[in-house]
Amino acid sequence: MARLKGFEKLTNVDDALSIFLNALKPKKLDAESIPIADALERVAAEDMAAPMDLPRFDRSAVDGYAIRADDTFGAAQFKPKTLEASHEKIVHKGQAKQIWTGNPVPEGATAVVMLEHTRKMRNHIEVVMPATPEENISRKGEDFKKGDIAIQAGTRLKAHHLGLLAALGTTEVDVVRKPRVAIVSTGNELVDLGRKPSPNQIVNSNRFVIAGLCQELDAEPQYLGIARDSEKDIHAKILEGLAKADAVITTGGTSVGAADLVPIVAGKLGKPGILVHGVAMRPGMPTALGILKRKPVFVLSGYPVAAAVGFEVFVRPIILIMLGAPNESRPWVQAQLTRRVAGALGRRVYLRVRTIDEKGKLCAEPVLTKGSGLLSSLTKANGYVIIPEDREGLGEGEAVTVHLFSSITRKEN
Amino acid sequence: MARLKGFEKLTNVDDALSIFLNALKPKKLDAESIPIADALERVAAEDMAAPMDLPRFDRSAVDGYAIRADDTFGAAQFKPKTLEASHEKIVHKGQAKQIWTGNPVPEGATAVVMLEHTRKMRNHIEVVMPATPEENISRKGEDFKKGDIAIQAGTRLKAHHLGLLAALGTTEVDVVRKPRVAIVSTGNELVDLGRKPSPNQIVNSNRFVIAGLCQELDAEPQYLGIARDSEKDIHAKILEGLAKADAVITTGGTSVGAADLVPIVAGKLGKPGILVHGVAMRPGMPTALGILKRKPVFVLSGYPVAAAVGFEVFVRPIILIMLGAPNESRPWVQAQLTRRVAGALGRRVYLRVRTIDEKGKLCAEPVLTKGSGLLSSLTKANGYVIIPEDREGLGEGEAVTVHLFSSITRKEN
Repeated sequence: MARLKGFEKLTNVDDALSIFLNALKPKKLDAESIPIADALERVAAEDMAAPMDLPRFDRSAVDGYAIRADDTFGAAQFKPKTLEASHEKIVHKGQAKQIWTGNPVPEGATAVVMLEHTRKMRNHIEVVMPATPEENISRKGEDFKKGDIAIQAGTRLKAHHLGLLAALGTTEVDVVRKPRVAIVSTGNELVDLGRKPSPNQIVNSNRFVIAGLCQELDAEPQYLGIARDSEKDIHAKILEGLAKADAVITTGGTSVGAADLVPIVAGKLGKPGILVHGVAMRPGMPTALGILKRKPVFVLSGYPVAAAVGFEVFVRPIILIMLGAPNESRPWVQAQLTRRVAGALGRRVYLRVRTIDEKGKLCAEPVLTKGSGLLSSLTKANGYVIIPEDREGLGEGEAVTVHLFSSITRKEN
Repeated sequence: MARLKGFEKLTNVDDALSIFLNALKPKKLDAESIPIADALERVAAEDMAAPMDLPRFDRSAVDGYAIRADDTFGAAQFKPKTLEASHEKIVHKGQAKQIWTGNPVPEGATAVVMLEHTRKMRNHIEVVMPATPEENISRKGEDFKKGDIAIQAGTRLKAHHLGLLAALGTTEVDVVRKPRVAIVSTGNELVDLGRKPSPNQIVNSNRFVIAGLCQELDAEPQYLGIARDSEKDIHAKILEGLAKADAVITTGGTSVGAADLVPIVAGKLGKPGILVHGVAMRPGMPTALGILKRKPVFVLSGYPVAAAVGFEVFVRPIILIMLGAPNESRPWVQAQLTRRVAGALGRRVYLRVRTIDEKGKLCAEPVLTKGSGLLSSLTKANGYVIIPEDREGLGEGEAVTVHLFSSITRKEN
């Protein structure tokens, strides 16, 4: 692809992503087996069939008395049925055996009557509500039958999934290995954190933004350091990233008029090279997308906010495909925009907003900053709203969809 | 407090929590200083003031040309203003100097005109849109002024907060130390994962559920093992937990009719002991809440689902207070209930639902299971809906609030 000087021609966001996906054809990475205690937030690699019935035996779903249901028919508050309190293994006709949630249902019992529907007397139990057969019994295999899919491939494992795996006696689980993402920061103006920047220099903050976004998805960032604005340096770092990682992200390289240095270098490194350069979005317009050694190379803006948006739009979907969880989406809410904002005809705008819960009503306050590049526009926000290419703006009071990256702020009176 | 036999008297959920909070008066834990690279998802301990202006210098918010705004007044598509391309340090009248996003604005320039509003000729630049003074310049201190609160106490640190800290030259950040939570599983019926359960035994799955829920909040679980259903064993484990941790969670102890063994033991261990025993909720009715050595003791059900709900309702708010982030809430969405479900008058019901995005319309499908204790009711769900105490149920099509614990499922076609 010829480099587009000054981005006179920008590629639409959807087109950019589909051109890239069609050429890259990203695949789910290999699986690795890890102890379930380490598996929180990892992604299940394969459908996992239950190796046994769960529950393994008929058990009580409530605290109460195991009884024979027909012994309770006709019971009522002022006409209780009286049953003998049993401590035997088997529940015979006319008997009730105390039982707690999760206990095996004793032989002979056909239902469990809840504690609240009984009165305990000295030697007997009064039942004040009839029980139907099977009532309050969790049958063997009712949760999962042996061979049922207990956990689907692509599931992000949460606390209760780990509980289920344990209940099924599973000590190790196959998860997709973490995608390794090499991070190359470019720019003569950058110094690494801990070193004192000279008057025109700035601390490299992008690496922390990009690494954090990788970690939030459970990918593994590998920071390769700062490349100076020279073809040789950028060349070497990109090659290092391609050798070490499943994907390479570069940011910046925009000083001394070198805005296109990274895509130029990437384009020279092999085929197909750079596929898209310049995207009709704001922020993040100078984003470029390339493929080298069959691996994705994301050339993001040097501006932290634009880099974060580039990550959201292009990197995140690819990492999720590598993780085998392509349909995972950020939580989103409908909210009411608190004031009018301008869009940018022909560009897709990612508007940062602060979503506030005002007694159950959600309001989205645009976090407006000049040039849309300031970090405060992210740190003061908890989500973003998309202004489509064909909209001149959004109106005050308009219902918008907010994609959340932090939790909603609850407004206290 | 007298122990309530058979829970004839249940405490309302809100009352239970406020009785507990009023007696416990939980406080934010101490801070610790850690490198920012390790601070993702940790909670900021104190308001952090910016130690310098950000940006540290006037910089360009766009790619384009640094110019003197008055040189562009009257420029239009077919009546461009022509400026000399400059490579000097200072921009003089009639000159334009190429500049990239983030670069310092050169002396003399009063605005930056976007690349898209210019045409580059051999030796000069044509500007086709007038620029107003200050346009596209991020002024020194515009993002944050020295002394501004850059990050508020109680902020859960995300990728962009780490970027901001780096940009401010901050190498270490004060975060609230992780609350340590001791986990005691009780019950003769339990075996630890990796050991083969006998026919009436089950694998202890609760510890993984509770530990995972702690980790999701960034608290530090400490599993103390299984206590047998004996006062001595439970006594020892609770004391161990109080010595090692900031909070103790017990689960179960419901075998052989010993449902109340843990609260009995906890009640004997000191003052004030158990404050609430039996809560008007489903699941999780046998929950007890106590205070020993000024630390919270949560006595949760032995049933994983009921334990998870008990954690959500009582443990989570206390941990969030300890973390200094009391107002953090799960993401929630409004959705339409796909079918009628029964409530339980007088009890607050936590209904597990699967929320599905059907082309922008959110539907909440109740995950119905008998006895509400099966793990599949959690693993098949991605959130929960509260059915209030005064509702007999919820209707089909009713708008409900779903509190999400996993991401929303997107329905393809």
